[in-house]
Amino acid sequence: MEKQRFKLLISYDGTDFCGWQRQDKLTHPPSVQQIVEKSLSQIYNEPVAVCASGRTDSGTHAIGQVIHFETSNHRPSMDLCWASRGSLPSSIVIKKAWLAPKDFHATSSATHKTYIYFIHNHIRPSALMTRYSAWIREPLDIDYMNAVSSFLVKKQDFKSMQSTGTPVKTTIREIYQAQWKWRNPQLLQFTITGSGFLKQMVRNIIGTTLKLAKDGLPPETMAEILAACDRRQAGPTAPAQGLFLRKVYYPSELDKRCRQI
Amino acid sequence: MEKQRFKLLISYDGTDFCGWQRQDKLTHPPSVQQIVEKSLSQIYNEPVAVCASGRTDSGTHAIGQVIHFETSNHRPSMDLCWASRGSLPSSIVIKKAWLAPKDFHATSSATHKTYIYFIHNHIRPSALMTRYSAWIREPLDIDYMNAVSSFLVKKQDFKSMQSTGTPVKTTIREIYQAQWKWRNPQLLQFTITGSGFLKQMVRNIIGTTLKLAKDGLPPETMAEILAACDRRQAGPTAPAQGLFLRKVYYPSELDKRCRQI
Repeated sequence: MEKQRFKLLISYDGTDFCGWQRQDKLTHPPSVQQIVEKSLSQIYNEPVAVCASGRTDSGTHAIGQVIHFETSNHRPSMDLCWASRGSLPSSIVIKKAWLAPKDFHATSSATHKTYIYFIHNHIRPSALMTRYSAWIREPLDIDYMNAVSSFLVKKQDFKSMQSTGTPVKTTIREIYQAQWKWRNPQLLQFTITGSGFLKQMVRNIIGTTLKLAKDGLPPETMAEILAACDRRQAGPTAPAQGLFLRKVYYPSELDKRCRQI
Repeated sequence: MEKQRFKLLISYDGTDFCGWQRQDKLTHPPSVQQIVEKSLSQIYNEPVAVCASGRTDSGTHAIGQVIHFETSNHRPSMDLCWASRGSLPSSIVIKKAWLAPKDFHATSSATHKTYIYFIHNHIRPSALMTRYSAWIREPLDIDYMNAVSSFLVKKQDFKSMQSTGTPVKTTIREIYQAQWKWRNPQLLQFTITGSGFLKQMVRNIIGTTLKLAKDGLPPETMAEILAACDRRQAGPTAPAQGLFLRKVYYPSELDKRCRQI
């Protein structure tokens, strides 16, 4: 029987995993990919390899990660979201599933992505927010942080915001939106949408923004740091637990050819 | 040096603990009380035993648990909230500390308590809400649930809502407020304030409310179940992870004699 391709929308709490990416050998803690592949392999009774829109780091989360895989063992009557619940831990959920055309590719078809980052801004840390936010004790000035972020919103070289890792062809990316807002009096949310993101780029942007704030530097310093194309000019990488991959976007003509199952 | 008494406001994520109460021997996972006592004993360099407003069950959380303890080793210059951060895990936080009068007792001075309970009401479970809410797939009718809850709000015998455990003198309690509201389109919050609560009383009330809803019974059935004074008439105990001890109240004259340190 011919293989069919499937697109999945998945969500996970990354705290107890070593990131998205499958490791060469079984690690402890495991990666999200390993657990998802194990679950799908059980459901379809054959080895299943999945491909995601991109990696997420150890300790970071996903509200809307997108993956694809192929199998010839899918039965039309199967509710995959429901079926997966028995073999996935409660910290990983398949939210939606589609039968996808052969030219759909979770990584290369993606046109842009949105990440969000939470900062718990209070004099004391919170036992109940520590898993899903970074804690900053000093009061933050949202107008200042939005002024800093305004220098991100264009097509430019983000080399200064790239952590070392697998080499990439180009470090030029386009950011469409980057904005801070208060979700409640203690919780700041950063939302950033772009054509693509370099390794730890969002966390490096956050770390740099916080360092500029702490050092009392003018918001334009962000533009100078970006222009330098030098990672050493930027600030530290912000903690993992505040970061969520919120949404991955695909061309609407491709979305239209995916059929929800 | 004479012993001084201290009152602490603490918060914890109970997921990874076996409840509040110290166990006879070291357990795995440990109890919250064990970890707090270990931390305070390190800080004060002497064995410290703490007393809480009440126990919380395994897997339940606290936004505002209150405890007291005594030590003769406190130095006025010490910021206890800050000092405790080094020896407590991030899932337990001392939010505030007071020097308390000798007649302050976390358990017996408490006049009433507020608990909240979260239900994630959606067709799919959530990887990011599973730690802090119970998941109910079937759409819930908040007006019906509030009608059921209205029968809780008085002084009456709550024996039907008591799980078996340590015997208590009386099962009569007074409930001042019990209400459901939508926090967002997927998240229901129950808030209940009373003079005191029997073992697993809030979770038994929730479990009973959900069972009445499922069975399509009239809201007055709650009054009949309470009148029966029979645990077997009520519904099951709702899952632990949705429950938070939100606030413990003390007489204002006693609050006034506590001095924040």
